[in-house]
Order: sequence, then structure tokens, then C-alpha cells
Amino acid sequence: MTTAIRNGTIVAADLTYKADVLIEGGRIVAIGQNLTGENTLDATGCYVMPGGIDPHTHLEMPFMGTYSADDFDSGTRAALAGGTTMVVDFALPAPGQGLLDALKMWDNKSGRAHCDYSYHMAVTWWGEQVFDEMEQVVGRGITSFKHFMAYKGALMVNDDELFASFSRVGDLGGIAMVHAENGDVVAELSARLLAAGNTGPEAHAYSRPPQVEGEATNRAIMVADMAGVPLYVVHVSCEDSHEAIRRARQQGKRVWGEPLIQHLTLDESEYFDKDWDHAARRVMSPPFRDRKHQDSLWAGLQSGSLSVVATDHCAFTTEQKRYGVGDFTRIPNGTGGLEDRMPMLWTHGVGTGRLTPNEFVAVTSTNSAKILGMYPKKGAVLVGSDADLVVWDPQAEKTISAGSQQSAIDYNVFEGQKVRGLPRYTITRGVVAVTEGKIDSREGHGEFVPREPRGTVNRALSQWKELTAPRPVERSGIPATGV
Amino acid sequence: MTTAIRNGTIVAADLTYKADVLIEGGRIVAIGQNLTGENTLDATGCYVMPGGIDPHTHLEMPFMGTYSADDFDSGTRAALAGGTTMVVDFALPAPGQGLLDALKMWDNKSGRAHCDYSYHMAVTWWGEQVFDEMEQVVGRGITSFKHFMAYKGALMVNDDELFASFSRVGDLGGIAMVHAENGDVVAELSARLLAAGNTGPEAHAYSRPPQVEGEATNRAIMVADMAGVPLYVVHVSCEDSHEAIRRARQQGKRVWGEPLIQHLTLDESEYFDKDWDHAARRVMSPPFRDRKHQDSLWAGLQSGSLSVVATDHCAFTTEQKRYGVGDFTRIPNGTGGLEDRMPMLWTHGVGTGRLTPNEFVAVTSTNSAKILGMYPKKGAVLVGSDADLVVWDPQAEKTISAGSQQSAIDYNVFEGQKVRGLPRYTITRGVVAVTEGKIDSREGHGEFVPREPRGTVNRALSQWKELTAPRPVERSGIPATGV
Amino acid sequence: MTTAIRNGTIVAADLTYKADVLIEGGRIVAIGQNLTGENTLDATGCYVMPGGIDPHTHLEMPFMGTYSADDFDSGTRAALAGGTTMVVDFALPAPGQGLLDALKMWDNKSGRAHCDYSYHMAVTWWGEQVFDEMEQVVGRGITSFKHFMAYKGALMVNDDELFASFSRVGDLGGIAMVHAENGDVVAELSARLLAAGNTGPEAHAYSRPPQVEGEATNRAIMVADMAGVPLYVVHVSCEDSHEAIRRARQQGKRVWGEPLIQHLTLDESEYFDKDWDHAARRVMSPPFRDRKHQDSLWAGLQSGSLSVVATDHCAFTTEQKRYGVGDFTRIPNGTGGLEDRMPMLWTHGVGTGRLTPNEFVAVTSTNSAKILGMYPKKGAVLVGSDADLVVWDPQAEKTISAGSQQSAIDYNVFEGQKVRGLPRYTITRGVVAVTEGKIDSREGHGEFVPREPRGTVNRALSQWKELTAPRPVERSGIPATGV
Amino acid sequence: MTTAIRNGTIVAADLTYKADVLIEGGRIVAIGQNLTGENTLDATGCYVMPGGIDPHTHLEMPFMGTYSADDFDSGTRAALAGGTTMVVDFALPAPGQGLLDALKMWDNKSGRAHCDYSYHMAVTWWGEQVFDEMEQVVGRGITSFKHFMAYKGALMVNDDELFASFSRVGDLGGIAMVHAENGDVVAELSARLLAAGNTGPEAHAYSRPPQVEGEATNRAIMVADMAGVPLYVVHVSCEDSHEAIRRARQQGKRVWGEPLIQHLTLDESEYFDKDWDHAARRVMSPPFRDRKHQDSLWAGLQSGSLSVVATDHCAFTTEQKRYGVGDFTRIPNGTGGLEDRMPMLWTHGVGTGRLTPNEFVAVTSTNSAKILGMYPKKGAVLVGSDADLVVWDPQAEKTISAGSQQSAIDYNVFEGQKVRGLPRYTITRGVVAVTEGKIDSREGHGEFVPREPRGTVNRALSQWKELTAPRPVERSGIPATGV
Repeated sequence: MTTAIRNGTIVAADLTYKADVLIEGGRIVAIGQNLTGENTLDATGCYVMPGGIDPHTHLEMPFMGTYSADDFDSGTRAALAGGTTMVVDFALPAPGQGLLDALKMWDNKSGRAHCDYSYHMAVTWWGEQVFDEMEQVVGRGITSFKHFMAYKGALMVNDDELFASFSRVGDLGGIAMVHAENGDVVAELSARLLAAGNTGPEAHAYSRPPQVEGEATNRAIMVADMAGVPLYVVHVSCEDSHEAIRRARQQGKRVWGEPLIQHLTLDESEYFDKDWDHAARRVMSPPFRDRKHQDSLWAGLQSGSLSVVATDHCAFTTEQKRYGVGDFTRIPNGTGGLEDRMPMLWTHGVGTGRLTPNEFVAVTSTNSAKILGMYPKKGAVLVGSDADLVVWDPQAEKTISAGSQQSAIDYNVFEGQKVRGLPRYTITRGVVAVTEGKIDSREGHGEFVPREPRGTVNRALSQWKELTAPRPVERSGIPATGV
Repeated sequence: MTTAIRNGTIVAADLTYKADVLIEGGRIVAIGQNLTGENTLDATGCYVMPGGIDPHTHLEMPFMGTYSADDFDSGTRAALAGGTTMVVDFALPAPGQGLLDALKMWDNKSGRAHCDYSYHMAVTWWGEQVFDEMEQVVGRGITSFKHFMAYKGALMVNDDELFASFSRVGDLGGIAMVHAENGDVVAELSARLLAAGNTGPEAHAYSRPPQVEGEATNRAIMVADMAGVPLYVVHVSCEDSHEAIRRARQQGKRVWGEPLIQHLTLDESEYFDKDWDHAARRVMSPPFRDRKHQDSLWAGLQSGSLSVVATDHCAFTTEQKRYGVGDFTRIPNGTGGLEDRMPMLWTHGVGTGRLTPNEFVAVTSTNSAKILGMYPKKGAVLVGSDADLVVWDPQAEKTISAGSQQSAIDYNVFEGQKVRGLPRYTITRGVVAVTEGKIDSREGHGEFVPREPRGTVNRALSQWKELTAPRPVERSGIPATGV
Repeated sequence: MTTAIRNGTIVAADLTYKADVLIEGGRIVAIGQNLTGENTLDATGCYVMPGGIDPHTHLEMPFMGTYSADDFDSGTRAALAGGTTMVVDFALPAPGQGLLDALKMWDNKSGRAHCDYSYHMAVTWWGEQVFDEMEQVVGRGITSFKHFMAYKGALMVNDDELFASFSRVGDLGGIAMVHAENGDVVAELSARLLAAGNTGPEAHAYSRPPQVEGEATNRAIMVADMAGVPLYVVHVSCEDSHEAIRRARQQGKRVWGEPLIQHLTLDESEYFDKDWDHAARRVMSPPFRDRKHQDSLWAGLQSGSLSVVATDHCAFTTEQKRYGVGDFTRIPNGTGGLEDRMPMLWTHGVGTGRLTPNEFVAVTSTNSAKILGMYPKKGAVLVGSDADLVVWDPQAEKTISAGSQQSAIDYNVFEGQKVRGLPRYTITRGVVAVTEGKIDSREGHGEFVPREPRGTVNRALSQWKELTAPRPVERSGIPATGV
Repeated sequence: MTTAIRNGTIVAADLTYKADVLIEGGRIVAIGQNLTGENTLDATGCYVMPGGIDPHTHLEMPFMGTYSADDFDSGTRAALAGGTTMVVDFALPAPGQGLLDALKMWDNKSGRAHCDYSYHMAVTWWGEQVFDEMEQVVGRGITSFKHFMAYKGALMVNDDELFASFSRVGDLGGIAMVHAENGDVVAELSARLLAAGNTGPEAHAYSRPPQVEGEATNRAIMVADMAGVPLYVVHVSCEDSHEAIRRARQQGKRVWGEPLIQHLTLDESEYFDKDWDHAARRVMSPPFRDRKHQDSLWAGLQSGSLSVVATDHCAFTTEQKRYGVGDFTRIPNGTGGLEDRMPMLWTHGVGTGRLTPNEFVAVTSTNSAKILGMYPKKGAVLVGSDADLVVWDPQAEKTISAGSQQSAIDYNVFEGQKVRGLPRYTITRGVVAVTEGKIDSREGHGEFVPREPRGTVNRALSQWKELTAPRPVERSGIPATGV
């Protein structure tokens, strides 16, 4: 069965041209003029782009005896609805749990996925078992390891663990990832705020100001530099963190930053809403920031100092959010975004001229595929690539509303936002899953995507580190010890 | 007639993979496994990369009644010998001369080219004729306009001319380019140095310190921002200038910087050589800098704040250099580099781990093609692209020497440098022009490459500028004037 | 006749202590406990501080056939009313007019001053006469020379003139000053705005965005560095300019920045006021900026990267402002501030904790005296210093209003602002000129204050420049010239 | 008994003038013309400056069962010999030891001091006892609390301890101090180096690169900002750390940096010396850096982003250094410098024009006194100030040599350096202790100097923090909890 996408304009990360695309067996088999297939998708007036890759989701994530509300079923449906054809979720071992054991749990969940997926592996504690199993994890095609510098007493790892783990990741040819907030300081600030009667959702924002994120980012960069491993900083929300990344990059360090669509388009005033539910639904870490930080993030996407746009999709219902009434530290952290990432970024990025369409493709798809070691299988419109595509209608409009979303939760942080630029078709491995907002996807269609370690950046970095490694001074006549 | 490049590894700006390449009619017609052609080129152990593009040359440039020593014949031979398959030269009108008239002169010279070429148009004076002819220049496919902020009394334009010309370039969808040094201050410093008896080649370096380059770069960026046009800064030699570019980019401005291979690998100590000829042969503007500046340039290539590596190839013989004995301001400015750019950058970049092979391709070829509006005709290994290719042998070695170079001059600024990484074959529009150091190219083979205006960056920038343009405040009841 | 200030707390730039001050003959003759004089001023609950120095005023400045509305009479009365006991005005030669001739004109005006004063000399054109007379100007005790990089076609000087003048200033041991805005670009933007129908006062702000100020500041710094002279940048209004100054300072350059009280406390929204008069009254160059820039200026005062707070007091009546109805470029540039500078800075600086009282003294008085070469005659509470003092009541409050001001104009840009912290007494050379808001000063009391050239900063800079000056390479066997 | 210093030029931090100084009872009792006393010191051709204050020494510090070789006897003699009249030493409790108990130990040692002294209190562990005793420590006039972010397993405190202690210091009106190096990473790097056979003194430098210092500095700044306390960073050795301080200051944060004379004048090549002893004698933390870092430190002194110059004097004999033969981690950390700080800084700072004489006084004396809360008792030439003075002969020269030094150790890291600028007389509380290199000081003459908490910077910072503290949002109708 072949499918031809006709009359569209292909928009890749690096070029734009008019051509048809022919799909067979889940892959792109031809790109050219006047291609025909058994099925035809009309792309007149549309851009044919690589399907989005969301490099940061938490589907069905265990939390306080329950789970984040979107699982691999509803979550990947939401993704497809918004033009995203792949998600990279985080396998999170409980402290003490083995990595392989955690992977099994995630395999059980991901069977329901409607689109392809991969995992990052979280390193939430440190020990010989973790060290040993990391190699097998890489062998399974999971090459990125996430570390939490926040969530003290739960997921947080200390600097010596960070260094040990980063070193191991570097040796295995993987990339290190961090959630960068200073967990010690967040814990202290939280305790102080509660003690002072600051119990509402706005105190969540007070408890993790930009400074604690900037500090931790700067620290992670140093540790990665010392360990000789490329670093990927998730959810860069502010100038403080972005500045640390820029500074590192301008020294030639291999560091990537990932802003979220939420931080690019929403601000801290949400937390000052008089409606507790409204504010609590926006509670995530890091919290939304002010305009100055937004401007910084946009400029980062323009200049290349920030590399990808993600969602950190981790959806909790209003009921779940209300666990934190009277104590903001108990509000589940996380918001949705999977369905809205691409239309929101197109509207506020391409629609304003801040981003070119090619840059849009780069930051929503191609750069993730490259950094994470799965390009050009994913993230490309090339012959041989997976037919994960979105036929994007730049004129299509809608108003975002929880009432019409795929996500399982009862609200949407972008409620009421008008977007212009939507998928006409979303295609996952050759199968049309979305047609003008109508979902026709299949649970279980999604497949795990293994990824390659020891990419070119890893190899180059290792070469440089070897070249500049400390060398002992040759000395004759060393004196006897004084002791 | 078809040619197959077999058994190599394709290295493009964004990916690396094993495949054969089939060429026919000067273009790439297939990429895949087990391709065969009437001719076969064996790429075993080699990388198949887009041929280099040198975006900055001055071939047969008029100077003081004579011409730079390499013309389109020897210059493009040198290019091919080093793996470069396209040059972009500067058409320089004399003050008062029309742009179209200058183009005719350059067309006469470029007929001898062995590889493809394009032009940047220099704006060396300002007037209605220049304004008017710029449109026709763009119509001919020349979309980049160079301005000299140095060479006072000759090529230099003032800020108001810069603003007027930049605005015109922006309206025509082109990109503005600058040679950024403060010509007023250089002239004053030069006069002072001469008056103080500082007449040798080292005074050339004293007369144009990093500060004057940084200042002018910063100024050009501001003018481009106000005029709403993308800016390309040629021969970024120092941290001062790079810092201005970085700062602009981190504010979301559309600015590209071009370091030269000379500034990346040679330093100011060359000017302190006791041999006058040695020092004078290295005289170029900007001059070589110290280690701190080199480190900055390398990091710029790594992080993306600098975009392309060029040569500013403008070769003068020792005899020509000696015009400046007793007065450094009369030493012709310029050095060679066309033949050595790619091996030197590979050796010191990829060979040390500072650059990945993909980054090497990006900065030597692909980025120039994208920025200048001729991608993927040039700068790509894609079906349909021109077969401008280099089969790169990463193990091949040589010692650079004037004795064996294609350039017409009698010395080489890289004399004695060992390089590892050389072309096995250089292919220009499907024709093998170089085989393991042996040149078999044809004078007149090169063709002019017209380029597209109004690229995606231009369009995005214009959209943003329109969106943020000043709007008058609506007022009723404006008072009567006080006069 | 002796006067004792009793029971107060002395606040100097570097220390705070309880002591009485005894004044005789216009000078401080004793500081200690239990001092008595023929007159007694009670300073209970008050701070005894050096009287303010406003290093930047334009009194009775010629403009379009008329003059700025505050002359040395009303202007210095306003100064005293607000605790300022000295102003430094600008002697502005018309283009072509000699410096000494201009000085005579200013001497004629300043005879009416109620408090002491000095001049900066403006260099508004360049020629042998200017060069020659500069020495005599320095000989008269005027050691600071102001240059306009804006006001094209009127006061503006070009880069070569800037370099020549800066060099001369350096040789004479003076300091260079600049009004830093790119006059070429401002002129072009203004023309465009008018052409597009943007004629209102808000277009004044559009015509001189932060970028043009940042650029010019950066350029002036480079020129001063090359010329080897300390630089003082007047009315630093924005982060762009401040960044350039910070960057220079962190390279060890000798550069000072002067923000105005207006830019610290008012923002650009004033220009969007629906009342034309309201907006036009705030027209000054540089214009008010947004919050981001204000934050930058305050931090500069805190960290020392900005040195003094001035007013650029240049008051025009509403009638004069209305010259520019229908053409914003004809609105006289300038606002008042002399009377309000110190209460406004105290309220928003010391009153919020952004500044310590000592820092307040430093930036309103002492630093100006030091930089300009008249410390500790002025700017100090030391035995032997002039008795220019303010007895400051930190609890006194008022609401600023044009109705009760000394200035001759009919409005006040701070109208309605509540301030806390006001002079109880202002004392000029030992004479009490203000008592709790009541003025009792004398026209003509003010004296000219000559200043010292070749201060320690000048000498240190010259030493360093000499040490690092270019040295010729010694060569034998220089070849014969090629010509 | 009165002493008159006649015919000198007084050089204070803010002004220079010719005057005599009259001393009585250990204090300055008059400054003026033609003063006479029972004793006369001739200062013809000399500068009369505040005696130096070294804010960072470790005299008789316990280490590995022995003590640093200079105690309060030889250490303060060395200080006086070089023009330094006060030292601030660190009282270091052993982990678990009470602060007051440690103070007693230090009181026992300091009884031998030849000049005045004070202490900083080190917080080497955290607990209720420490929290409680801090108040008494402040009550004794010790207002600065040092924290080690390095020396893991010994003195190092973690981020939560840092935050708790900083908060306590802020509440008590003191200032927080840090030794900023990431102890976790240093420990790991050290272990790796040893494992790789890098056992020599150069590995000490490898084990603590600038990055680990920059990171820790940045972290301490964030913690101090969150805790609302001014921060003093000791031994800032590199651009990385200085950059963090500059960045903080340009945001208005209250942070001071202290470079050491060693880092300003010596570089890392010392560690590559073929002589083990030579290298080991220079082992200190942080280690010496390269030229780039030195340039940064000098510029920091010029621009004010760095505040004081210290020595971290902690002298170990060659025999003690040899404890670390075969294992660099066992080489006692520390070098001398007390005797050479002022001549070396004068020679390389004032002698080159990088610093003015006033800036020299500021960074060697006055700034320390201000920051630490003992100005103008110390650090000033004012009537009422302690007569801690140095009569400085700018023409006097010597060559530094261990053979003629006061320090108890057998070498000098500045051995062979020529200095120009030396004390003619050093005067401690009115007593002449040094005359042209001849020491005539008295053991036990030195007194403890208590210092004031809650200085103006503390008060201003607290006010700002209170003004900007988080405020809860007032909400009605908060929902019931979801649990």
C-alpha cells in the first residue's frame, strides 16, 4: 500500500522546496515531482514537515500513589492531534530500583502508544547496580540519562553522584541530562514559605526562583565538563539558566538547552490568579517566568543557543492538583501541552517572524532527532526516513479548549488561545492518524525507537578531552617524603 | 556519461552515512547502495562531502596599478586542489563607477574559472545610480552587498551611506556585508605610527588593533538592525568582533560571522619576524591576533555563533609586498589560503576534536550556500544538487609548501605546516578535477551561480520588523504650535 | 561669623558618624563633639551630607533664537532648594566660535548664580583654533571636554574629530565626555518617521532607540582607549550603553557613566500619554526607557559601574515645547530636575534599600568632585572643605508640584510624586540658603570653581599606555622597495 | 609621647595631599601643616598611607598534627616588615567543636601578635550549638563567617548547611564568606589523578581547575542572595570566579571578591618546574592560573569588581611540604606573602599605571576596613583613627629573598623578584615597628579589634529584601483538598 502526499511544499530543517512524497511500508520511498500512490493526500497550500518530536514527556508517571493522568494512550493521541509523531518519555526507577526493572515497567505502559516513542533513563540514585546496568540500558538503545538536581529526599542526586554518573555516561557514549534546580535551596525556601503562611500555588513559584535554576544549570555544566560528557538541560525556563548555557557554549562546550512551549508563551501572572484551581493547574517546575525570561528564550531559539522545544507533558487533573490545597508543596507538578506545542510555537514563532519555518522544524523535530541519536530515521523528510510526517496548513485556525482536546485532563493551560497553523494530516510511520482534527489512530501502533550512542559530538569531545588531559611532569631527584 | 563514487561515507552538514553517489550531467542523480556508473571513483576509507565553498576571495583584484597575483585561473585551480569547488568573489566598483559596469569587468575575468563562482557586489560609494542599479544586480542573482568601514579615502562608506545602502539591500531581500574596522581611527593610528618611525610590517598590526574591529562590527550590527536587514560580517578575527556578534545573536538579531582559516591558525608573532619579507607577506586586514582571539574563533565555530570559514584569498607576490618597504601602509593587504583552507581546518579542527566532520562540512560549504541563497544546489550531497564534491581522505598527509602549490605567488603563509586530511578527488559539476594532488581541471569550466533573494531569514526578519514598527499615538486636541 | 551644625549624623561617601560641624569663612573649620558657633543649626534626627553636585546642567542655553527657561538665577535656586550646592554647566561654542569666546558668554550668564558652579567645555567643531585654545581652557581650570555624537548638522563631530580632540584632551590631562547617540542614524530614523506621519512626541523616542545610544557609547569608548584618555559618558539611559561601559571597565578601561534621575524613575510610557503637552514636556535625548533599562541603571549605581547621578537640567516651557507641534524634531530637547534629583534618588534609592546613604552621597556629590578634579574642596565633609552642605531630614515629606518649585517652567516631570527625605538646611559656602523649603539665597553668591587637570587616573592611564605602546621590530637587511 | 610625621604626602583611598600627621596615644590627633611632636619621622619624598590590612591569614593553623610555620609572632613581624599593620585570621573549629571554644584557642595564639588583629569565624559544621554560639561570636565583635565549599570530609559544608548558616549570618547582621571550590568534584578529580599516576605537585593544579572555583562562587552567590546576606569571596584566582562575581554585582547583588597577591603576579608554570620542592612550595588552593586569569584580576581591581588584595598567608616549610611526596593531596596547602604583598602590588600595580596610589590604598587597607566593619578606626588617615600607618618610599628598592625575610619558612615564592616601593617606617598604633627594613617591634603589642555588625550594606540589603519579599495572594473560595 503506497501513499502519495501531493502538491505540498516540503519544509525541512535546512531547506524548503516543492515536491511530492511517496510512502510505502511506513517509510518515505520517494521524493519528487508528480508522484502517485494508491492513496493520495492533498497538501495544496500546506507544508510537509517532519512530524514533531517531543523530547520530554511523563506519561502515566507514578505519583503519590496515583499516576499522571495522560498515559501512552491519551498522551500519544494528543501528540498526534497536534502534529507530534514521537515522544521521548522518562523511565524513572524508584530509589533503589534497578534500571532494567524500571524499563520493564515502562515497556508495560508504552504498549498502548499510538505513535513511536523512546525513553530517557533517569538516574535517581547511585550504586554499583546502577553503574552496571547503564551499559545494558545503552545496549537497548537508550542513550540519554536524566538526573534530578531538585526534589530533595526523593529523586535528587548530589554532586558526587552526578559526577560519577556523568562520567559513566560519557564512557558509554551517551548524553547526560539534568533537571537543574538547586534542591537544597528549594527545600529550604519551601519550608520558610509554608512557615510564613505562604501556602497557595503562587508560593510554588516563589520557592523556585530563576536563581536556583541558573545556579544548578551552571553547576551541571561544570560537572559535565569535568566528566567529559555532552549535556542536555531540560526545561530551560529563564535567562539565568540560558545565560549559563550560552556562556558554556561560547567556550566551546557541548551543551544543549530545551525550553518548553509553556515558558515561551505563558508567564508568572498565572499564579496570581484569584482562582486557586487556575493557579494550581499551572504549577510545574520550573514555574512560569516573566517577560524578560520569555524574550531570552525566544532569542535563544533564534540564535541557536537553545536547541529544542518540548512540553514536559505531565498532566494532572484538577482533582489531583487539589491534593495541594493548604500546602503548595503537595500540588502535583506538571501541565499538559503535547497537543498544543506545535500550533502554539508556529503561531507565536513563525507567525510573528521570530522563527523561520525551517527553524520551526529544527526545534520541534530535527534537532531532537540529531541530539538524541536517531536522525535521519526520525526528524527528516528524506528517502529512507520513517514516514512520520505532518502536513501543515498555515492558514488553519482554532481556539484551544479543554473541551475538544485529546488529553484526559479537564482543563488546558492554553485555554482560549487562538492559534493559526494546524495539521491537515498527521502521519505516523505511513499511517494517517489525524485528518483535519479528526483522530483515527490506533492504540499499540507505536514502536520503541532505539538510539545510537557515540555520536559525532561524543567522539569529538572525547578526542579533545584526551588531547588536553593532564600530563605528569617528568622529574628526577624527587626528595624523600617529609613524614 | 555517469560516474559512481563507491564505498565511501557521505558526510553532510547534518548526517553521516555509508552510500554510493551517482553523477550524471553534472548533478547528483542517485544516492544509495551499490550504484554503478561508466566511471567509478573509489572512496574506500574516505568521506564524500560537498565541495568547499569559499565565500570570500579577491581574484585579479585591481590594486595600485597592478592586480592581485591569483586570477580566476590560478585561483580556482588552487581552490580545487584543496577541495574547494566554488568561490564567491567581490565585484568592486571604483568610486563613481556603476555597479553594472563593474560586473562587466568581473565577468571578463571570471571566464577563466576552473570551478563555479558567484559574486558579492561591493558598495564603495553612494548615489542614485548605485541605488537604482542595485535592483538589477539582485535581478542577476547577486544578492549580497559588501561595505567597507575601513580604507578611508578609498572604499570606505560613512554611517549615513551604510544606513541608506543597508535599507536598500533589505528592501531588495538581500543581505548586507561589512568589512568592519573603524577607518577613521585606523587612518589616525597609521599616521601616528609612521610619524613615530614605526614603518615596518608589524606597524600594520599596531594600526588596526582588535578594538577598531570590534567597534565597527558593533556599529554595523546596530545599523543593520535599524535598517532591518540580515548582516554578514566578513573576516571576524578577534574576540572583540565576535563578542559583538554573539551579543547581537543572543538578542535574536540575524547576524553571521566569518572567520578566516588564517586567523584560526596563525598569530601575531608572525609580524615580529626579523625577516621583513616574512612579516610583510602576512600583512592583511584585519591582521593576525593572539591566542585568546583564536580560542574565541574556534569556540564560535563550535557553538554556532560564527558560521563559515573563508580565506579572503588576495595573493600578492613578494615583489608586490615590497611596495611597502619603508611605509607599511603601502604593503598590499592580503594573503593566500584557497588551497589550504580545508586541509588546515580539518587538521586543526576535526583532527583535534574541536569540530565534528559534520560541522566541518557546515562551515566550509553548507552554511555559505544557505546564507547566500544557493542551497541545495551547492553545499549539499542530495539528489538534484550540483555534483560539486570532494572525496576526502582523512589519512592522507602532506607538508604545505609554496613549491608545490597552484597559487601564482612565491610563498605560502602556511609553509611547513603538516596537514592530515586531503582530497582524494575533487569533482566540479561532475568532472574530476583533482586526483590525489594531481590537477586535471579545465580553464573556463566554471559557471556563474545566480542566487536567490528574499530567503526565509529575510522574510522572517521583515515580518518581525513590521510587527514591531513604531505606531503613532492617536491624540485629539493637539495644541497649536508655539512658534 | 561662625556657624555650628549640631546633633546631626555626618554621612560622607565612605563613613557615617555622629559629630558637629563648625563653619567659618565659607569653609569647614572643625568637626567634632560639642562644637559651638555664633549661629547654630539643629541637625537632630538629620544627616549632614556634602551638598549635591549636579555635573550636568544647561542653564540659559541658546536654542532656536531663544534660551532654555532656567538661567543661573532660577536654576541654581532650584538646585539649592533640593540640596544641590553646585552645578557644572556646559559652555557651548557655536560651530566656528572660539572656545574662549564661548567661555566669556558663559561667564556673563553665570554671574547670577546662587551657588558655586563650574563648566565643561563643549567641542562642537574641530580646527586649529580649537586645538590651541583647549590649553588655555584647561589653564582656566576647565578640564572636561564634551563631544556630541548626535545632533547631526549642528553640534555633532565625526570620528576623526573625536579622535583628534580626545587625543588633545588626553595630552592636556583632561577628561573626555560624550553625548553618545549615533547622529547619522537618528537623523535617518527621524526623517523616516516624519515621512510616515509619525510626527508626535512619541516619535522622538522611536527615533533614538537604545541601540543608537549603545552603539555610540561603545564607539566613544574605543576612540578614548585608542587616544589614551579617560572617558565620561553623560546621560546613560539604557542597558545597551551601560553594557558597553561595564564591558570597558571589566577590561580595566577608565570609563565613567552618568545616569539621570529621570531615567532612573520615569519610563517611556510617558510619551504615549494622550495629552500632547504631557508627552512633549518629557522629550529629552536620550528619551525615557522601559523597566529593564531602569533596573540596569540602579544596579550600576549599586555595583559602581555607573558613577554619578545628574539631571541634564535643560528646562523649556510648554510654550517652547509647542514649537514642535506637527514635527517632533522641533520639540526642544530637555527637562527639569535640579530641585528634585536628591529627594527622588533618596526616596527610590535609600528608601528602598537599593542604595546606602553613603552610596547616595557618593553618586550625588563625592564621585563628581573626584572625577572632575575638585575633591575635597567640594563633595566632602572634611576640615578645610568648602561648607557646601545639606542637612538632610530623612523623615520630611512632600509631594512634588510645579506650583511650588523654583524652576521657571510651568510643569514638572515628577508632578505628583511623593518624596520622603528633604533638606532641612542647604548651606552654600557657609551661608544657609534654604531652611525647610524656604529659600533665602542670594543671586551672585555663586563662584566659579576651577578644577585640576592630570589627576591620578590620568597619570596612571598615561603610564600604562606608555608601557604598552607599540615598539618597532629591529631588523637588519630590509629588502629594497618593490616599486 | 607624641610623634610627628613630617613633610610627607598623605595618600588615602580617596585623596592625596601634603600634610603632616601628629600621633599621640596610639591615635592620630592632628593632620595639618607644620605639626611637631616629641619624635619626628621624616617622610620627605614619601607617601603616608594607612597601614596595610591583610584580611586573610592562617597563623599557627593546626594541620595534620602540626601547625603552619608562621605563628602570630613571626607572621605579624613579617606583616609589619612589609607595611601591613593588621591581619584578620581565621578561627577554625574542628568539626564538632564549639565556636567559642575555638575562639579561646585563637586567643591563646594571638597573644604574641606584634600588630593588631581580628578574626573571621569559620563554620566548619552545622548544628544547634553553632547556630546559638554565632550570636555570642558577633557579640564579641567577630562579624564575618567563613564557609568551606572544598575540603570534602574535613571542613566542607553542604548547600543546605550553607543556606542555614548564611541565613543566620544575615539575621545577625554579619557577612558570609566562602572558600569557593566544588569539593565533591575536586575530590573525584584528585582520586582520578592519583589513580592515573599523576602524583606530583602539578596534579594539585589539575585537580582544581578554574571551572570548579567558578562554579562554587556562582553557587555561593545564589545561596547568599536567597538568604539575604552580603557575601565575601576569598581568594578569587580566576576569570571564572570573577565573572560570577561581576555578573552578580551587575545585578545589584552585594558581593565582594578578594584576589591574592600571588594570583596577581605568579602563574601556573611554577607547578611545571622540574624541581619538586619548587613546585610543592607553591601548592595552595586555588592554585596559580595563567595570564588570562591574571589580566582579569587586575582589571577587577581597576574597575572595582574586586575589592581587596590579601595573601591567604599559610606558610609551611619545605619539610612540611614534603609530606606530600608521592601524593599531591598530602602536600600542605598554603604559601607565604605577608611581607611581600604591598611591595609586590605597588611594583606591579602602581608602578605600571594599572592602579593609582589611591586605589592601592583602597585595596590593601581601606576597603577591608569598610567591608569588615572597622572603618575608620582602621584603614584611614583621619583624626581619631588608630595610628596604623606606613610611610612609603616609592623609590626604595630591594630583591625579595628568603634569606632576609621575617617569615619562619625557608623559601619565598617571590624569591628573586625586584620590587620598587617599600616602607620607610611602619607604625602600629603609634609605635614605630619598622625603620627602613629594620624591625623593632614588640611581641604582644597587638590587640584584638572588635568589629561592628549591621553595617550600612547589611541594612540596605535587608530593606530591599523585605520590600520584595513574597506576598501571598488573597483568595476567597479555595476548593477542598483533593485527597
